[in-house]
Amino acid sequence: MQIIDKLNSLDDLKSFTYEELESLASEMRSLIIKKVNTTGGHLGPNLGFVEPTIALHKVFNSPIDKFVFDVSHQCYPHKILTGRKEYYTNPEKYLEISGYTNPKESPHDAFVVGHTSTSISLATGVAKARDLKGGKFNVVAIIGDGSLSGGEAYEGLNNAAALGSNFIVIVNDNDMSIAENQGGLYGNLKLLRETNGKAELNFFKSLGFEYYYVPDGNNLAQMIDVLEKVKDTTCPTVVHIKTQKGKGLKAAEENKEFCHWILPNSLDENGEIRKAQNAIPPETYTSITTEFLLRKYNEDKTTVVINPATPGAVGLVPEVREKFGANFIDTAIAEEHAVAYASAIAKNGGNPYLLVLSSFVQRTYDQLSQDLALNNSPVTLLIYWGAIQANDMTHLGCFDIPIISNIPNIVYLAPATKEEYLKMLEFSHQNKQFPLAIRVPFVEPVSTGVQDDTDYSILNKFKVAKSGSDVALIGVGNFYHLALKLAKTLEADGIHPTVINPRFISGLDEELLNSLKQNHKLIVTLEDGVLDGGFGQKVASFYGNSDMKVLNYGAKKEFPDRVPLDKLYENYCLKQELIISDIKENL
Amino acid sequence: MQIIDKLNSLDDLKSFTYEELESLASEMRSLIIKKVNTTGGHLGPNLGFVEPTIALHKVFNSPIDKFVFDVSHQCYPHKILTGRKEYYTNPEKYLEISGYTNPKESPHDAFVVGHTSTSISLATGVAKARDLKGGKFNVVAIIGDGSLSGGEAYEGLNNAAALGSNFIVIVNDNDMSIAENQGGLYGNLKLLRETNGKAELNFFKSLGFEYYYVPDGNNLAQMIDVLEKVKDTTCPTVVHIKTQKGKGLKAAEENKEFCHWILPNSLDENGEIRKAQNAIPPETYTSITTEFLLRKYNEDKTTVVINPATPGAVGLVPEVREKFGANFIDTAIAEEHAVAYASAIAKNGGNPYLLVLSSFVQRTYDQLSQDLALNNSPVTLLIYWGAIQANDMTHLGCFDIPIISNIPNIVYLAPATKEEYLKMLEFSHQNKQFPLAIRVPFVEPVSTGVQDDTDYSILNKFKVAKSGSDVALIGVGNFYHLALKLAKTLEADGIHPTVINPRFISGLDEELLNSLKQNHKLIVTLEDGVLDGGFGQKVASFYGNSDMKVLNYGAKKEFPDRVPLDKLYENYCLKQELIISDIKENL
Repeated sequence: MQIIDKLNSLDDLKSFTYEELESLASEMRSLIIKKVNTTGGHLGPNLGFVEPTIALHKVFNSPIDKFVFDVSHQCYPHKILTGRKEYYTNPEKYLEISGYTNPKESPHDAFVVGHTSTSISLATGVAKARDLKGGKFNVVAIIGDGSLSGGEAYEGLNNAAALGSNFIVIVNDNDMSIAENQGGLYGNLKLLRETNGKAELNFFKSLGFEYYYVPDGNNLAQMIDVLEKVKDTTCPTVVHIKTQKGKGLKAAEENKEFCHWILPNSLDENGEIRKAQNAIPPETYTSITTEFLLRKYNEDKTTVVINPATPGAVGLVPEVREKFGANFIDTAIAEEHAVAYASAIAKNGGNPYLLVLSSFVQRTYDQLSQDLALNNSPVTLLIYWGAIQANDMTHLGCFDIPIISNIPNIVYLAPATKEEYLKMLEFSHQNKQFPLAIRVPFVEPVSTGVQDDTDYSILNKFKVAKSGSDVALIGVGNFYHLALKLAKTLEADGIHPTVINPRFISGLDEELLNSLKQNHKLIVTLEDGVLDGGFGQKVASFYGNSDMKVLNYGAKKEFPDRVPLDKLYENYCLKQELIISDIKENL
Repeated sequence: MQIIDKLNSLDDLKSFTYEELESLASEMRSLIIKKVNTTGGHLGPNLGFVEPTIALHKVFNSPIDKFVFDVSHQCYPHKILTGRKEYYTNPEKYLEISGYTNPKESPHDAFVVGHTSTSISLATGVAKARDLKGGKFNVVAIIGDGSLSGGEAYEGLNNAAALGSNFIVIVNDNDMSIAENQGGLYGNLKLLRETNGKAELNFFKSLGFEYYYVPDGNNLAQMIDVLEKVKDTTCPTVVHIKTQKGKGLKAAEENKEFCHWILPNSLDENGEIRKAQNAIPPETYTSITTEFLLRKYNEDKTTVVINPATPGAVGLVPEVREKFGANFIDTAIAEEHAVAYASAIAKNGGNPYLLVLSSFVQRTYDQLSQDLALNNSPVTLLIYWGAIQANDMTHLGCFDIPIISNIPNIVYLAPATKEEYLKMLEFSHQNKQFPLAIRVPFVEPVSTGVQDDTDYSILNKFKVAKSGSDVALIGVGNFYHLALKLAKTLEADGIHPTVINPRFISGLDEELLNSLKQNHKLIVTLEDGVLDGGFGQKVASFYGNSDMKVLNYGAKKEFPDRVPLDKLYENYCLKQELIISDIKENL
């Protein structure tokens, strides 16, 4: 019998001996490794946070005392301890649990969280509400060293320091972000680690926090000891703990970046990283991008590649980014800085590419508008993972079109084929006129075999891929291929649609749209993102004063949580048969 | 003859004696006071930054050396010295100059800037581009202590510290933001001021900067001395200077918040603050809001009023905010934190109101989406100054509708009358269901005299103010009154339009819109904001599969810079006669 079998409540946990807690930690690690290697998920952050989590629940009294996790990608141990262990012990239930905190799952989860650097700000609100109501409990924000690079974390620290009441920040320092840490703060964290927390120069103290240092945060005794000390503190307090990312799994300890988040089945039966199956990995839009950027960098040393802390996700794995030398810059989790920085480089003769995921580009709206668009800086933004997806609701990729395409001056392009993408990339390198964003296709590369000779400096020129009549299908980027499929089906029924690949999302080809009025009565727009504020609604508005009918297809304005893609397409009437039937009804 | 008459280039400045520079400073102050009191503008920040600007231009070699101003509301002395003094000496030219930096005005201006906390990030990009190209010049970011509270400033500092090359940050510490400073950082700045920069605990040093302190930044000799020292430094360096906001004008020195930005003619001939003319100031939507919040606070001590550093702009002048005690929170310039903080308060039993200007709400998009909307937190956002305006292009109020109304879960309301606004406010205090945003009308209050009995928990229910046929006018918020005027004109011509006050901007009343199909052939939407991604396009999309024609009126997607409102209305076809003629053409 394992210790974990005896764990049915937090009271059980509190009754365990140190030895039993150590065994529990080890058992929890095994469960996490097995579960994550089956479903995919965050591995390193959870392995490194097992003992701190046990200590937190041993010392504090959740859910009366409140824990606010940053990103919450380190919450698996917390979930195991707070009534959700079956989702980690029973493989049949593996997929029923979210990888992030969610109050709907448990009262021990304070917030829905998935983006970075929010925990301290959220926790100050919890503390303020407590103080207003005269409550007495501990509020604990749990944040990794990587997340401390984000502006919201600093804004939170600055405000929390002035709270004047109980407030505890656990700084979980594993000396890693997703990739390496970047920036001046990390020099101070290093100094503090090297001096056992005793250095005079102390970022947290300078902001007004009480400060405690724990040299081994994976040591239960040390953790329990410090938490006992700070429990019920009456002033804002930082507990800086050194932990080991990936702790307890050799592969994860040694390959911290690779094992931050893994795909299913990444580890073999010995817990080692499975070698890639293909000798030559297949071409992807990511590899096409990397190849292009390396070529440009070799031709032109003002080419700069910028990414805010997710380099692996955009193909900038360590061996690739090394090739860019000082021209690859990881700004840390600082999307706001990244945009302003890129804008200034472009304005001063550099050629910056900012690679960012759709879900994270919204972290820098004001900078896109002010630092970039108002200055008309010729930065190229490459937007990854922009598509309707079966993701966690905190990491959807369907809002980038409304965000980017409604900011003046930014030209947003959506390539549909490899050749178009390559031509747009070439254009981006010459462009000195305006900020350019390209929605990197989120599909396998489709090659036409024919070089694209479009001049993308001529704005908002849509491409008619197929001339027909009665109905025109405008398929944006990823969904251009859906338009082609629909056209094929319609043709079998004797309907000959026009098929349009707009390429430009941020503006309309008014001349073309006007000309369609001659022999079309229906326009169908298809976009792989949310409809509200998107491309299709611009088309509908354009035709508002005409007899043209317009049907817009895309996602509903909502936050679907891990809903299978097939189900989403059904909900959004994006199934081919549904669209075909709509079209016929409207012809 | 004044010294300033001898100033025709920066070379002249460099040749002046100390005595001449002192006289120049005094003359510049007089010009700034006269100009700002005529046109309105930033007073205190410019008066406090005269000597530092003279010293910067004396020591450095602009525009080869680059200055990047934060907000750039302290750039008037810089403009006077860099070829633009006529705009400050000649009242006829007063209005031709922007209140912010703009490279189109002068090569001495590095960027278009108007929002806060961007200078360090922008300057790191300038330095990076320099280093890539092997350039040799100084890059100087100039930031006020208030602006240091924003996350982007911290992200910039963190990254700048790792630059490893010439980089200078002037921290202009006048111990004030627009209002008082808030947060832990300011304790450290105080400590540094009190110890003449010698305290061990040093926020800037903890991030890896070299650090210099100047006890009197308004002393030319001290400033020139320190700048000579740091010029051509090879490492990131902070020069922390203590200056006096409003320096040289007693009224501004003593009323720092009031004199941060003044309206025309705020000062009398003696340079004293003019007493308000009206014994009883007129009612405004701002005063209505304040009154409501005070009443609610007195009834319910969980009512919390939050504002990020612009309390005066939303009616929370010192004597008002005092009344809220600890329930008024100025988060400093930290909109991201403010949203997360408010969200957490709402989730934990408080009743937070976050008051923010339209131009600044975009500084917190990710938090609106993740911290607020995903958590369905019943915060009330009050959005001020949302309207098409003749503002500087950095401070437009026309993007809040596309931003807020396209985020799932947030309900965005646009009241058109005082009674509606009051009812919405009452509703907001009871609402526990969803995040609510209210677009505070940007017009003089219009009272119907009839209490609004709408139940705003029933979502997306539009109000038919007038039943007619053929054409329906949907006027959103401020523009409801335009719809009424248009209706009157049409009626005189025998056309009897339906007039609709939608109240909800974030969703459609599909039942009503469907019913209009019976006896209407044209829908006209009117919104006081940009069309792209806005309300009207949703209506156009809704009617896409019907015979209904839809005309959308609102602003173009652009950044107009100080264009008079009348001209904007003309450009946007928002003039009544233009709309009427469009309507007639489409009926």
